[in-house]
Amino acid sequence: MEHFAIGVDLGGTSVRAALVDERGNILAQDEDETDATGGPERVLSQIFGLARGLIASRPSLAPAGVGVSTPGPVDTITGIASDIPTLSGFAGFPLRAELERQFGLTVSLENDGIAAAIGEWQFGAGKGYDSLVYVTVSTGIGGGIIADGRVVRGRMGMAGHVGHMTITPDGEPCPCGNRGCFEAYASGTAFTRRARQRATERTDTVLGRDGSPINSRAIFRAARDGDTFANQLIDEEAETLGRGITNLIHILSPEIVVMGGGLSNEFDRLHAGIADHIARRAMPAFREVPVVRAALGQNSGLVGAAALALPGRDLAFHPVAKPGVLEF
Amino acid sequence: MEHFAIGVDLGGTSVRAALVDERGNILAQDEDETDATGGPERVLSQIFGLARGLIASRPSLAPAGVGVSTPGPVDTITGIASDIPTLSGFAGFPLRAELERQFGLTVSLENDGIAAAIGEWQFGAGKGYDSLVYVTVSTGIGGGIIADGRVVRGRMGMAGHVGHMTITPDGEPCPCGNRGCFEAYASGTAFTRRARQRATERTDTVLGRDGSPINSRAIFRAARDGDTFANQLIDEEAETLGRGITNLIHILSPEIVVMGGGLSNEFDRLHAGIADHIARRAMPAFREVPVVRAALGQNSGLVGAAALALPGRDLAFHPVAKPGVLEF
Repeated sequence: MEHFAIGVDLGGTSVRAALVDERGNILAQDEDETDATGGPERVLSQIFGLARGLIASRPSLAPAGVGVSTPGPVDTITGIASDIPTLSGFAGFPLRAELERQFGLTVSLENDGIAAAIGEWQFGAGKGYDSLVYVTVSTGIGGGIIADGRVVRGRMGMAGHVGHMTITPDGEPCPCGNRGCFEAYASGTAFTRRARQRATERTDTVLGRDGSPINSRAIFRAARDGDTFANQLIDEEAETLGRGITNLIHILSPEIVVMGGGLSNEFDRLHAGIADHIARRAMPAFREVPVVRAALGQNSGLVGAAALALPGRDLAFHPVAKPGVLEF
Repeated sequence: MEHFAIGVDLGGTSVRAALVDERGNILAQDEDETDATGGPERVLSQIFGLARGLIASRPSLAPAGVGVSTPGPVDTITGIASDIPTLSGFAGFPLRAELERQFGLTVSLENDGIAAAIGEWQFGAGKGYDSLVYVTVSTGIGGGIIADGRVVRGRMGMAGHVGHMTITPDGEPCPCGNRGCFEAYASGTAFTRRARQRATERTDTVLGRDGSPINSRAIFRAARDGDTFANQLIDEEAETLGRGITNLIHILSPEIVVMGGGLSNEFDRLHAGIADHIARRAMPAFREVPVVRAALGQNSGLVGAAALALPGRDLAFHPVAKPGVLEF
């Protein structure tokens, strides 16, 4: 018998839901603009609205469970939300318990970077590997870790906040309140901010000319048209991504690094610079670790969340078994 | 029936062996100066010499197996050594197979940072936790990761090379060949090098006066006697350790961080500065993670290696099971 699960990707901008089969195929999906200031009751009713629609559209399919990717930090061990920066009113809200009560199904929660890592591992660019690091580069930088065939969750299920490793002491301010974070240098936001700041000092670039907006798309387009400044900005971005990824390779020894998020749309242009940094800066035994583009695009987290609820994969969090024989 | 195992800590300076019981107690131990240039045959004969002596000293105890902590990088999955910087002639040597052949017992290999993490987790400062990061600060900086009740090994069993995350772009040169590594700033070597470089510019310190040697011990002693420069050096060291540890906390979300190695002898003096950095720089949800001193001192790796071979703990590496049901 084929099994199905509902995956939900709750984000600060949109809430998306999908009915996913055992092979990771999305059979149906729907989305809504997140009512980010509406509070948890309102956001949950959005989730149920989407899920009900999906179930009604495929009345012959009974989902085995529900997996939800949430913006962090959520304590996915207890299922209780902390203060979620992008969504109002969630601090202390018993997110998993409320979802389970209203769904009448088992619900697995996962912080969004980990959910996306699971999606890529099970069905995407990391399929068949036992150890991988997923890094998403968009407005911010997040991530998730798979080690030795298992999801790395850590305390409160919050592992994978790779965007907040400091890569420059007392460097650029980061939205997290710290300075010098990987995110503050290599996120899409940091990339375009740097471009805007420096474009004003340059006369040899088309970027910003005649008041045209400077965003990632414009920078990559200018670079393809031979703009030297745009190419410099991209080379620096690749170098900085390479620096953060090399750190993660030394710490975690993955077999592969998967890059997702908005900036991965330009992975073909960024890849050589990232790989070059690893080849020059990683210790010899780590130099061969490949970096690849996420295969599921914006659906890594949606499908990863569903995978948590698919029978037979055993991906959801379990408390650590402590055999009595080891107690002294 | 009580079980026993042999733990071996193979280092560039000394090779040590111990007979360890199920509670992590060392019943007997011995050591030898490593013949670092003697090649693998000679080093293995040193290991067997020590082990034979231990077994002969306790004829009633039959060890269940052998665990060996080795300086990296060793591919602990295949058991084949790469070029070990501190020991000559090991490149390509089938270390585990040769040890098993000559011991006639199952042998588990572990890179040294991971072995020490296992020791502290099973029997030391990390006992009872499911997720911990171990950081050793001595000549270099190494580490090991336990996540969700399991050892994190990664590709070739080489996870935990935390000393080689870059914390300053193009910064101080590191023995690994890269620049700006955590090790290049926060190891005991870096700490004393900084002291020596800067002591010559200072007239208000006892450090180096009358040609006295400047080493860690002298710096901490001077600090205790009120030397301002020595205290500054230590505060900077604690700050830098705090920076690297805060990175690891964000990436791995451990419940606790355990610090070992030579510099942990002065943990009481360093701790406040490390904890202060975490409290100021970690994201709020990560600020409460404690940093503690290793409990097993120089025996973390020795006992951790033995733990790999103790029945019932299931710590040794297993290939990841890939159930047929998941193959599509």
